Amino acid sequence: MTGTLVKDEQIKEAIIQAAQKIFQQYGLTKTTMEDIAKAMGKGKSTLYYYFSSKEDIFVSVINKEINEVFDSMVAACQQQQSARTKIEVVIKTKVKALHNKLNLYRILSTELPCSRDLMESCRIQFSQREIELFVEILQFGVDHQEFSESIRSNLPFLAYVVISAFRGLEFDLFFSGTDLDAKIDLLLSILVKGLQ
Amino acid sequence: MTGTLVKDEQIKEAIIQAAQKIFQQYGLTKTTMEDIAKAMGKGKSTLYYYFSSKEDIFVSVINKEINEVFDSMVAACQQQQSARTKIEVVIKTKVKALHNKLNLYRILSTELPCSRDLMESCRIQFSQREIELFVEILQFGVDHQEFSESIRSNLPFLAYVVISAFRGLEFDLFFSGTDLDAKIDLLLSILVKGLQ
Repeated sequence: MTGTLVKDEQIKEAIIQAAQKIFQQYGLTKTTMEDIAKAMGKGKSTLYYYFSSKEDIFVSVINKEINEVFDSMVAACQQQQSARTKIEVVIKTKVKALHNKLNLYRILSTELPCSRDLMESCRIQFSQREIELFVEILQFGVDHQEFSESIRSNLPFLAYVVISAFRGLEFDLFFSGTDLDAKIDLLLSILVKGLQ
Repeated sequence: MTGTLVKDEQIKEAIIQAAQKIFQQYGLTKTTMEDIAKAMGKGKSTLYYYFSSKEDIFVSVINKEINEVFDSMVAACQQQQSARTKIEVVIKTKVKALHNKLNLYRILSTELPCSRDLMESCRIQFSQREIELFVEILQFGVDHQEFSESIRSNLPFLAYVVISAFRGLEFDLFFSGTDLDAKIDLLLSILVKGLQ
């Protein structure tokens, strides 16, 4: 990247960071471009040079948060030495992150008119990266004789099914379910035995 | 029940049936109490004797539909001779019914202001009956040596986890997923092996 491009990226990142804090505090509806500009000590025109609207900034904030969640899942995964514990930490890290971001999810579902499309696009993006991660984990499990060689034939399909199975439990977060960790542990035990 | 109570129930049922058709055709917002009364050849006052509002009728329609879905799941289950096929037909019957009711779900999520609370109450009701059904199936599986004796200790908790695992796949219905039956079959194979 050239110097100007790097500087552009830095300013964009600074805007997103400032907006992230303000959105968390006041929600999307009450926040104005003026508020975000003020928080940065810049003029509104700077913001409009990089983003067309506060919704546009909000989408970037969401994408940043998704990347953060995914990065923390990958980091937790890399520290583990078995496929079983890799799956466990990935799911539990995701659940913890989702729990922390429930507030953001509520803003999304009530304040953003385009939230359905936005959430759909976030979901697809996140889902693709998650499948790649689980394909690696399952492959690791086969390579290390934790899982049966027979599952190797269609790992992306299997990864999708395993992720979905846990996703069913993750929805408990939105419905004040209890014992989520115990439920994850039980499902993990059944799945690991089923994959042997 | 006395004669009057039976007659009251019959009229309520007739109102619900008439409303069901009209809601499906026009949606909740466009339908009036007048429309429902007209379709039955009754006056509005008859409707208001049994229901306080069209939203009240709508809730009864939803409950009726939920009962129909659940009854079809139970009927399919009873015809099967193994725990594995019982789970398979229960889930596939549910998925098929949900697919047919997608339109209703869309009305719910966009037209009904109280849809969140209503859906939450429907979800809890349905979920409790589903857990009881799965406890029976899992118990049947243990009794017939399909599943390990060791799972008998906490069947309601296990039933919840198994239902949730499939629920993760059921959400595919709302996001135009493909190969849902193949995904259900794969998850079922893994879970059944994991429960042996």
